[in-house]
Amino acid sequence: MLSLRRLLCSKHSKTIPARNLSYTVRQILLGDVQHQQAITVHGWIRSIRKQKSVSFVGVGDGTSPVNLQIVVDRTLIQNLRVGDSVRAVGTLACSPGRDQALELQALELFRLGACDVTSYPLQKNHHSLRHSRKHAHLRPREPTGLAVLRIRNALTDALHRWFRDRDFTHVNPPILTSNDCEGAGEVFRITTESALRQHQASCSVEDSKVAYDHSGNAQPETGSRSVTSIPEFFDRPAYLTVSTQLHLEALCAALSRVFTISPTFRAEGSQTHRHLSEFSMLEAEIAFIENLEDVMTVVEDSLKDALLQLKTNTSEEIELIWKLSQRNTRHPSTESGRSSNLSGNNSVGSWDDFTRVASLEHQWVRMTYAEAILELQKQETSRPGSFLHSIKLGIPLQSEHEKWLAGTLIGGPVFITDYPAQQKPFYMRLNPSDLTTDEKSGIETVACFDLLVPHVGELVGGSLREDRLNHLLTSMDMHGVDKGNMEWYLDLRRFGTFPHGGFGMGVERFISWITGIENIRDCTMFPRWSGSIVM
Amino acid sequence: MLSLRRLLCSKHSKTIPARNLSYTVRQILLGDVQHQQAITVHGWIRSIRKQKSVSFVGVGDGTSPVNLQIVVDRTLIQNLRVGDSVRAVGTLACSPGRDQALELQALELFRLGACDVTSYPLQKNHHSLRHSRKHAHLRPREPTGLAVLRIRNALTDALHRWFRDRDFTHVNPPILTSNDCEGAGEVFRITTESALRQHQASCSVEDSKVAYDHSGNAQPETGSRSVTSIPEFFDRPAYLTVSTQLHLEALCAALSRVFTISPTFRAEGSQTHRHLSEFSMLEAEIAFIENLEDVMTVVEDSLKDALLQLKTNTSEEIELIWKLSQRNTRHPSTESGRSSNLSGNNSVGSWDDFTRVASLEHQWVRMTYAEAILELQKQETSRPGSFLHSIKLGIPLQSEHEKWLAGTLIGGPVFITDYPAQQKPFYMRLNPSDLTTDEKSGIETVACFDLLVPHVGELVGGSLREDRLNHLLTSMDMHGVDKGNMEWYLDLRRFGTFPHGGFGMGVERFISWITGIENIRDCTMFPRWSGSIVM
Repeated sequence: MLSLRRLLCSKHSKTIPARNLSYTVRQILLGDVQHQQAITVHGWIRSIRKQKSVSFVGVGDGTSPVNLQIVVDRTLIQNLRVGDSVRAVGTLACSPGRDQALELQALELFRLGACDVTSYPLQKNHHSLRHSRKHAHLRPREPTGLAVLRIRNALTDALHRWFRDRDFTHVNPPILTSNDCEGAGEVFRITTESALRQHQASCSVEDSKVAYDHSGNAQPETGSRSVTSIPEFFDRPAYLTVSTQLHLEALCAALSRVFTISPTFRAEGSQTHRHLSEFSMLEAEIAFIENLEDVMTVVEDSLKDALLQLKTNTSEEIELIWKLSQRNTRHPSTESGRSSNLSGNNSVGSWDDFTRVASLEHQWVRMTYAEAILELQKQETSRPGSFLHSIKLGIPLQSEHEKWLAGTLIGGPVFITDYPAQQKPFYMRLNPSDLTTDEKSGIETVACFDLLVPHVGELVGGSLREDRLNHLLTSMDMHGVDKGNMEWYLDLRRFGTFPHGGFGMGVERFISWITGIENIRDCTMFPRWSGSIVM
Repeated sequence: MLSLRRLLCSKHSKTIPARNLSYTVRQILLGDVQHQQAITVHGWIRSIRKQKSVSFVGVGDGTSPVNLQIVVDRTLIQNLRVGDSVRAVGTLACSPGRDQALELQALELFRLGACDVTSYPLQKNHHSLRHSRKHAHLRPREPTGLAVLRIRNALTDALHRWFRDRDFTHVNPPILTSNDCEGAGEVFRITTESALRQHQASCSVEDSKVAYDHSGNAQPETGSRSVTSIPEFFDRPAYLTVSTQLHLEALCAALSRVFTISPTFRAEGSQTHRHLSEFSMLEAEIAFIENLEDVMTVVEDSLKDALLQLKTNTSEEIELIWKLSQRNTRHPSTESGRSSNLSGNNSVGSWDDFTRVASLEHQWVRMTYAEAILELQKQETSRPGSFLHSIKLGIPLQSEHEKWLAGTLIGGPVFITDYPAQQKPFYMRLNPSDLTTDEKSGIETVACFDLLVPHVGELVGGSLREDRLNHLLTSMDMHGVDKGNMEWYLDLRRFGTFPHGGFGMGVERFISWITGIENIRDCTMFPRWSGSIVM
């Protein structure tokens, strides 16, 4: 009943039946179908409970976290098994049971496809998230997989609505790019089978095995010899984008407010819980914004709205994952060995946390990098050995520092602003000199922020962009950026330059944050990382 | 006035002001701002008209096809030029002019960024779409570019809403895939800089130039020698997806109805007006559908809704492109030399066409491949030389055939169904033998369709998928598909297999169809094709 009530009062619950398609389980549970109406339902059997004369069959089709109870004469389910796909025909009626409001009294329950349970690779109660990763094609059917998929769907829906409602234009910047200089780690390069065949045909050296080192980089031999170049499909080398930001800026110069939810790629070899080779980013770029605070407000407002939408539309999915995760901590299958107790300050692990974080009245804490360093130093002084890495003004914040700031010091999301220019990419706007971290240190800072959240660390990165041509040229020199390929980017400053800023948020990290799923590889169905690509 | 009225009655017109951001031109024109209220507006100067004491400055920010008229004392615009970015402060008032309902009476008009008109690469009235392609970063600011971007935004919005409202779950299948066998032309392969460095260091052959042949394939030398393999970043070769369909099927097996609007890639060398190396596809997959008609109905209903949404929300953008295109046909800059007169049957070129095509009462024509061949043969008989390629049962339809069927015979969208199995990928569902094209010919057909539209040809391709394990195995053998990497796909038929079908639609082709823009390279801002990648 609770489930149904939740569905019934859900904001986006009203669905439209598609011509020629049968009702989904969600549409039926939402009350879109009249009682006593004869309907056809499809789905997969999730449970079978046999009684003397009738049987109760739970059927799900993935559209709802709640199964539809089908009441059927026991003789009709002789050969049916959990996992079979079925078609049921019957009438909808109020259920006398206390677990559901509705049930389908079926006259017919027909098996469409059998599921051989004995050879099914993901046996019930016998696998960790890590094990199911190997069977990625079946993972979407698992309770955690289904929940993650529906949460993601609700998240992208909320973000699309928020930005479109505020006059942001949805755009699709290219995935293939000729710019490799955005300074976000190693990039993937594009080639073709025929180019490789051509190249290999002209390369006469004996076949030799090459290994990646521990960080995923191939080990080059010493001494470069004259080499054959691989023919390019385009007129120059092409890469997979690490961030669509530079292209977004060109679009922003036309449309003023743009956003995208786009795949991005990093060829990093690091095997952490926070990195994927392919992941999705929400990226937005806003013209005529002169204040970093305004960029942070857009981030905060859009994410708070997304949190509220998720609470309204996917509370059962989120609770299910919290519950399953707590069960998993009792098994040795939790990979890192560290406790993933989700309550308290280390995650959004309860509805109290959720409500507090999403409240519009309580602004998320904002502090400068210099203030964060001070706090870290205080902690190190009062409790020596708190951190593995030493702390002083100018160092990059390590993952342990980020997690302590958000998880322990603040106990929630925190914006860290105004990092040293040297640590950040060339395109960030230089702060006026009175905003350097520390007058004595003389460290130049840029108008940027990282949004840190408990348990994940960096969730969002953003900045004002350097809109002044002369400052941008200086910064490119300082960062060693080759200007040859970047004339188009400089043109944006030559012709009607405009103050602007933007940010990027990792979609899978957001899911990791709110579900408490520790490893980002379990926050997407088909994860790719150094050394692993399934399907 | 017409513009404003159109905006005011627009269905999705109501926008929400974002905290801390100024009003957009669209929000102002929509009437979201009270008259006599002091406001700040930002944008770029599109026009300046000087009068004795005051000047009229048209300012646009890309959110609306209509500029905001700013009335300002003539002394305030001494140094301002078209292209400059500006901030205006003033009060909103009714305009006495007949071209607009509102104007901003500005007390201040401040230049934020200058635009050096003399060196600006895209001078007014001096360029074709082809010329502006070379300056891709400035193209979004051009009238055609802005219109295409806003049409695309409205299109993706309409599609998102249609599918979400009908219980389709929005998913993001991976771009990187280990499956290269989908039979959709040559694929891009992934590598890394460090892998290439490693490989080249161990390859001792002299540097040699390699050229692509006319179809973009590198010419392999004869006689393959022993070669060094390039180290893989993943544990096996990885490719860019040519279609997310196979992965969508795995998700469909969990969620029943899924859709995505996702980038896809083809490493084709062909230099046609219809092909890009990177393009966007709407793809949907639907479980428990047993009839090809039902898949076509989903296509037809969703696209008709999109057409109506575009008519409501972007009619001015579409009309602008029709108008500019007609002007261009008077110049030699039109590439192909063929007339791009958009009225009549050869395109959606008038609102009458639009309304007719989008009408829910008139079902789009559906005919089988065999019937289409008959029609083409009739045409060839009555007018010999109508086609370059000869026509008989069993041949693949050429672009000229497709354009004749949709453009001339039907004069609108037409579904061609039940193609010979041999022409189509392995995953399409084999028709019962009484549905073979012709009993005497004995050609086996599959339950598939192409949706052809005038001026573009194939816009959508779809099918029922082969859900029967034994038939799928036979089809894979027939198509020479290596099963080694496809066990996961076969598993979907082993465990709870289910009747299903789906389709894919090229987003840029849809834009080409409704705008009449001839070359698909102008239907996206940053096109990539064999030999060309700008930015």
